[in-house]
Amino acid sequence: MNLTQYPSILLENAVSEFAKLPGIGRKTALRLVLNLLRQNETEVENFGNAIIKMRKEIRHCRFCHNISDTDICQICSNTKRQKDIVCVVQDVQDVMAIENTQQYNGVYHVLGGLISPMDGVGPADLEIESLIDRVKTENIAEVIFALNTTMEGDTTNFYIYRKLSPFNIKITAIARGISVGDELEYADEITLGRSILNRVEFKN
Amino acid sequence: MNLTQYPSILLENAVSEFAKLPGIGRKTALRLVLNLLRQNETEVENFGNAIIKMRKEIRHCRFCHNISDTDICQICSNTKRQKDIVCVVQDVQDVMAIENTQQYNGVYHVLGGLISPMDGVGPADLEIESLIDRVKTENIAEVIFALNTTMEGDTTNFYIYRKLSPFNIKITAIARGISVGDELEYADEITLGRSILNRVEFKN
Repeated sequence: MNLTQYPSILLENAVSEFAKLPGIGRKTALRLVLNLLRQNETEVENFGNAIIKMRKEIRHCRFCHNISDTDICQICSNTKRQKDIVCVVQDVQDVMAIENTQQYNGVYHVLGGLISPMDGVGPADLEIESLIDRVKTENIAEVIFALNTTMEGDTTNFYIYRKLSPFNIKITAIARGISVGDELEYADEITLGRSILNRVEFKN
Repeated sequence: MNLTQYPSILLENAVSEFAKLPGIGRKTALRLVLNLLRQNETEVENFGNAIIKMRKEIRHCRFCHNISDTDICQICSNTKRQKDIVCVVQDVQDVMAIENTQQYNGVYHVLGGLISPMDGVGPADLEIESLIDRVKTENIAEVIFALNTTMEGDTTNFYIYRKLSPFNIKITAIARGISVGDELEYADEITLGRSILNRVEFKN
């Protein structure tokens, strides 16, 4: 559909708004909008208002900058979490992924992105200065890097590493290697190479 | 992510609303919501309000029941369209698809669905009675069936056909056959069979 003429401006506006979202084309947007049109008015108001309210009222935790309903998030305010281990992640999805493993009991620091000169994102656009401040003022023993292994992730790791190296803290990165269940012969050589270099003592 | 714990109720509500839409799972919903969260407040208000406003204010054309901003839609109020040919379609997307061909100059009748006993949709739930009324009261020469060739489409065609047969009008259906550009050997046999039965005079 190229010369698509919408039968209604209201419909067209709603479709255009949906089509601004990533991965949603105009055809999908139309399908979603027509679905909403079939729901009753209250349901559609709930949909629209939930999103407007979220954008308006959501906050970021004063310490870790993760999304939160309160000034200090549930993880940072949890007295059972180890406050001297900080895991540095790109965004909220990574926090959720690590939390789901139930293997981590420290706290987080959410950068809100990665350094990417190509996209015009510099260190000042991210929560890097606030991480340095935490290391300066809090009693932090270890910072764990858990950023994506992309050019941007590596650049960001390196930038933060240089900023943190004057401090007397342990700096680690999450292990990269062959996924549990994966077969060696199908693994890419960089991953396999790293998994050999970073081999760990065998425990039974 | 199974035991996903959202860091915020506001976020979770917004994700749940998006995940109600067809074809949107919770992971995609989260991605969309986080994208909205990165936009400024006005943009997100525009998004939410465009959808609420559409649901509240949109109308259906008094004649063809297509979505419209006005009491009578642009097609039905266009004096250049042939009012005595009515194309029966399932919904607004089909109107848009046919309009895009620029091959049709009649008007439409939008049923709003298909007869489907399995889904509890009967003739009374659709704009069938209003179609019969149009044939009774307007000066209609031809009704074209352009419904999907599914069990539901065929049932609906047949139901309407029986209702319209007492009237002295031409009843046609859009041609089914091999798509332009498709190769015969890959066509399914029902389509190929129909395209032979419904062959047309060759014109050069």
